[in-house]
Amino acid sequence: MDRKELDDYARLLVAVGVNLQPGQRLLVDAQVEHAPLVRSLVKAGYAAGAPYVDVLYADEYVKRELIEGGPDEAVGYSPPWLVERMRAIGEAKGAHLGVLSSPEPGLFAGLDEARIGRSRMIEVSNVRRDLIAAGGISWTFGGFPTAGWATEIFGEPDVERLWRLIADSARLDEDDPVEAWWAQSKRLHERAAHMTDRGFDALHFSGPGTDLTVGLLTGSSWHGGGLRTAWGQEYVANIPTEEIFTSPDWRRTEGHVRSTRPLSLMGALVRDLELRFEDGRIVEVNASAGADVVRTELETDEQAPYLGEVALVDGESRVGKSGTTFFHTLYDENAACHIAYGTGFAFLASEENAAKVNHSKVHTDLMIGAPEVDVDGITAEGERVPILRDEVWQLG
Amino acid sequence: MDRKELDDYARLLVAVGVNLQPGQRLLVDAQVEHAPLVRSLVKAGYAAGAPYVDVLYADEYVKRELIEGGPDEAVGYSPPWLVERMRAIGEAKGAHLGVLSSPEPGLFAGLDEARIGRSRMIEVSNVRRDLIAAGGISWTFGGFPTAGWATEIFGEPDVERLWRLIADSARLDEDDPVEAWWAQSKRLHERAAHMTDRGFDALHFSGPGTDLTVGLLTGSSWHGGGLRTAWGQEYVANIPTEEIFTSPDWRRTEGHVRSTRPLSLMGALVRDLELRFEDGRIVEVNASAGADVVRTELETDEQAPYLGEVALVDGESRVGKSGTTFFHTLYDENAACHIAYGTGFAFLASEENAAKVNHSKVHTDLMIGAPEVDVDGITAEGERVPILRDEVWQLG
Repeated sequence: MDRKELDDYARLLVAVGVNLQPGQRLLVDAQVEHAPLVRSLVKAGYAAGAPYVDVLYADEYVKRELIEGGPDEAVGYSPPWLVERMRAIGEAKGAHLGVLSSPEPGLFAGLDEARIGRSRMIEVSNVRRDLIAAGGISWTFGGFPTAGWATEIFGEPDVERLWRLIADSARLDEDDPVEAWWAQSKRLHERAAHMTDRGFDALHFSGPGTDLTVGLLTGSSWHGGGLRTAWGQEYVANIPTEEIFTSPDWRRTEGHVRSTRPLSLMGALVRDLELRFEDGRIVEVNASAGADVVRTELETDEQAPYLGEVALVDGESRVGKSGTTFFHTLYDENAACHIAYGTGFAFLASEENAAKVNHSKVHTDLMIGAPEVDVDGITAEGERVPILRDEVWQLG
Repeated sequence: MDRKELDDYARLLVAVGVNLQPGQRLLVDAQVEHAPLVRSLVKAGYAAGAPYVDVLYADEYVKRELIEGGPDEAVGYSPPWLVERMRAIGEAKGAHLGVLSSPEPGLFAGLDEARIGRSRMIEVSNVRRDLIAAGGISWTFGGFPTAGWATEIFGEPDVERLWRLIADSARLDEDDPVEAWWAQSKRLHERAAHMTDRGFDALHFSGPGTDLTVGLLTGSSWHGGGLRTAWGQEYVANIPTEEIFTSPDWRRTEGHVRSTRPLSLMGALVRDLELRFEDGRIVEVNASAGADVVRTELETDEQAPYLGEVALVDGESRVGKSGTTFFHTLYDENAACHIAYGTGFAFLASEENAAKVNHSKVHTDLMIGAPEVDVDGITAEGERVPILRDEVWQLG
């Protein structure tokens, strides 16, 4: 991970991830451990013509002290000036670039779980969520290797090894990574449009431990690849992105499914998770580790045990090919086909389908794809159409 | 520098430096490299009853990218939300704790000097300055060892060696450092009160290369040790503090002076600086290195070449005893007697003296004390009274 590689990565995130335009302000949210990349992002931002690059460093260990020793009302508190900062980037039609990593394993061990759960700055998050829903900013996330994250994956702080995986997922080895990502975005656009056109009534997943039918909403869209702001600026939210996804009919999931990768949830590791659905609802949860964490999350609200998302990823995914579980959704959800219980994406639904898109406070992605899992589309007439075989895309 | 030492240091800065009261908000401004101390400060803040500890990490390397590649209007720009943050801590009658270190040598090398000079967030600084002038916050600064700073001092990144000096300057080896600092504050209060009572007409410094008379303002005060907020909360601005100081009559400095320690100025090192004064004004600048940096700064405005401060430090100073030049004012100005050209402290002047306190955009401290430099007070009647001999305090 030398300066040149970081500069290349930063340029990619700025040029494609938010597709920064001359005169567009750039907000960077990162952790103190991400400083080497942040400095390259600032450089890339000014080179692309940002009038100002505004960096905010968070610190998970400061958050830990807050959860451990702060008064109740401080946990989850959003300082008004941070809310204002997020509002202002919307007013400026700016860009928001977040750097992510998985925290050190056990960082929050021993702390009150309710306080951990409340420790996000909800008001800042809500302003950002509303800006995104309104197409008011271009935004993306990219990963950065930290010692803690590398330890979670490899059992040792091999930051360089994690960096190689991140760089590979970001296609930094391509002659022109920027061009490669616009091409990838186009490919996913076309694949999503094709799925939308096909208008399947349901998807069927079958493989070891899995026999799952997910009812779809005709008239709803699939999405993949780049997004557009309200004023038409195209950008690729999240580097890497390998998935196409939609929100299914929350009432029509049936059968059982076995997770194909471990799931990191609330600081716990859930292994060999198996879910059984009846009338759309998760009615049984089993796992060799962490089943209770899932069960507790499913109790968050009435709609939590219903699906909000189903996503398809083929074997060309760089993340999937790495064979690595990153313990971070930014990567893991791009490794393989997945479903998410909890809230769905209203923006993908037609007006008459709006009530059939799930709505909940949670959204947890769960990998269910693998070479040995077949995926079929089922038409309204009951015809089965192969979509994925041995993780190879079968449709046009 | 283990966790316990950092926790002790953080507790000292919180308990004495800002003397945080239960219910008082705490603002921490630091650099990303200071994270280990910042985490201890957050812990100490909540333990002392802070309703919220608000941390802002700055990054000198981000600043470097801004100076190098940002548009002109971005250099020195204060994001409105940072101005608001500083205002809010005043409205909350809060506390402000800054962590300081000297940047890596040569960090800003090769950059446009005018842009370097404009790169401070002036609007944020001004809000803070006004809050301090009005007694609207309790505030302090403490140092933290970074690899860059250690390299500047020792020529190698011996962070642990610098930490030992910082810990020693902070009296962390005392049985009760908190009590030691309140005692130190009381001692400096008494010494300053004694100097104010004596009402000397001038100070005279004499030693190798030095024969300097600094005209004082009768009716002006000396200050040293802790300060008080408008509501009477006592605190010790800056750990360490070893000096008592006043603003002299800017029109009445005469003679010549030789600096006893190197001076770090705008990233350059000024060695063997010698100044000659006529009618209060610096009329000659010589140095074995960096003279032009001083000459340039003296051209900042009309009043820059006049004194704004004279300060007395005796040989008991932990900083002075270390024999180290820290290349940071927080430490170096507590090592030995010093003068500062540029702006003075209006709050120390009686009303009729207000116009005789210097006013400028610059304020640069210059060490002139040493065992071989005698300091005398000169009374209105022309009597000479020894104040320091061999750096030992001679007055009651």
